[in-house]
Amino acid sequence: MSLIEELISEFKKLPGVGEKTAQRFVYSILKRPGQDVLRLAGRIQEVVETVRPCNICGMFTESEMCEICTSTNRDSSLICVVEEAHEVEAIERSSGYSGLYHVLGGRLSPLDGVGPDELNMVSLLERINNASHAIQEVVVATNSSVEGEATAVYLEAVIRPLGPKVTRLARGIPVGGDLEYVDHSTIVEALVGRKEM
Amino acid sequence: MSLIEELISEFKKLPGVGEKTAQRFVYSILKRPGQDVLRLAGRIQEVVETVRPCNICGMFTESEMCEICTSTNRDSSLICVVEEAHEVEAIERSSGYSGLYHVLGGRLSPLDGVGPDELNMVSLLERINNASHAIQEVVVATNSSVEGEATAVYLEAVIRPLGPKVTRLARGIPVGGDLEYVDHSTIVEALVGRKEM
Repeated sequence: MSLIEELISEFKKLPGVGEKTAQRFVYSILKRPGQDVLRLAGRIQEVVETVRPCNICGMFTESEMCEICTSTNRDSSLICVVEEAHEVEAIERSSGYSGLYHVLGGRLSPLDGVGPDELNMVSLLERINNASHAIQEVVVATNSSVEGEATAVYLEAVIRPLGPKVTRLARGIPVGGDLEYVDHSTIVEALVGRKEM
Repeated sequence: MSLIEELISEFKKLPGVGEKTAQRFVYSILKRPGQDVLRLAGRIQEVVETVRPCNICGMFTESEMCEICTSTNRDSSLICVVEEAHEVEAIERSSGYSGLYHVLGGRLSPLDGVGPDELNMVSLLERINNASHAIQEVVVATNSSVEGEATAVYLEAVIRPLGPKVTRLARGIPVGGDLEYVDHSTIVEALVGRKEM
């Protein structure tokens, strides 16, 4: 296999990248100045060598603890539990949440051999037990897939006995969403969760 | 800017990759074993440092000359002229051509300041003049854009006086193409170029 073919096969490991896209990447790289492209290689190497999970919440960070866990401006009585680290970014971009996070690193999925021990659950329970300020509320923000829901139910069962209130993100019509294009189950959830104006 | 953000902005320089896709790439990289990802960084570096244009045809190669130019199984009386190196791959995959290639590195585009001197044209003319076996035919396979056509016309004007026949790839209905979905100009070209059965 030539170097070019090897690079194509490495690019194909990225999500959503097939043969054609990987080829386009390689040819675009070959047309760019070498120095510029070496920066991409260097950054990949730096990220692999430097970025690691935060000791407390499991979010990606370049030091022992992430910026959110070390910040003094966050509400430390609130923990939002997500499946993957990139979901933290999505919630942060919304600017609607000022508490802390906990990254599970996946969801319960017995068929794939993922039980509570494969996820960062023990560290979550320890965190709730050993918190210097009591945790008032745990917001479960796992996805609304079958596995995400099962994970939420499990979390509720193990966290509530420790004290904190356990809440789940609201389900309903997305902002700007057109009723015509919203699926049935979302409409049912929106009706069940309707609020007085 | 954090390392992760820097890597996202490097990925965004790849063709067709926006913010979201670049983020997905980075998060997928962070989920994979470090050794595996370092291979991507290593390959990029190797390609940048090793791959260079072939001294004869301008195709990418890891040595002085590319495999096609050094092969003894190719018809050396035939040169196919393409705009970019990846177009060589496309023609090679078709297995319908056994001659040599010449990569222009672009197309004539006076508005963008690309004249004959900015392309590998002098080397093509020298190649035709100095060939040990006479070049019988030059197949012009530039794209059918306005600039590609202008480049073809220019090549015809400078190459024909040197001796070789100058041909252009046939235009017509693509194989498996449905007449209903083929554009007007392609149908006109197919009619003009119709052949007796």
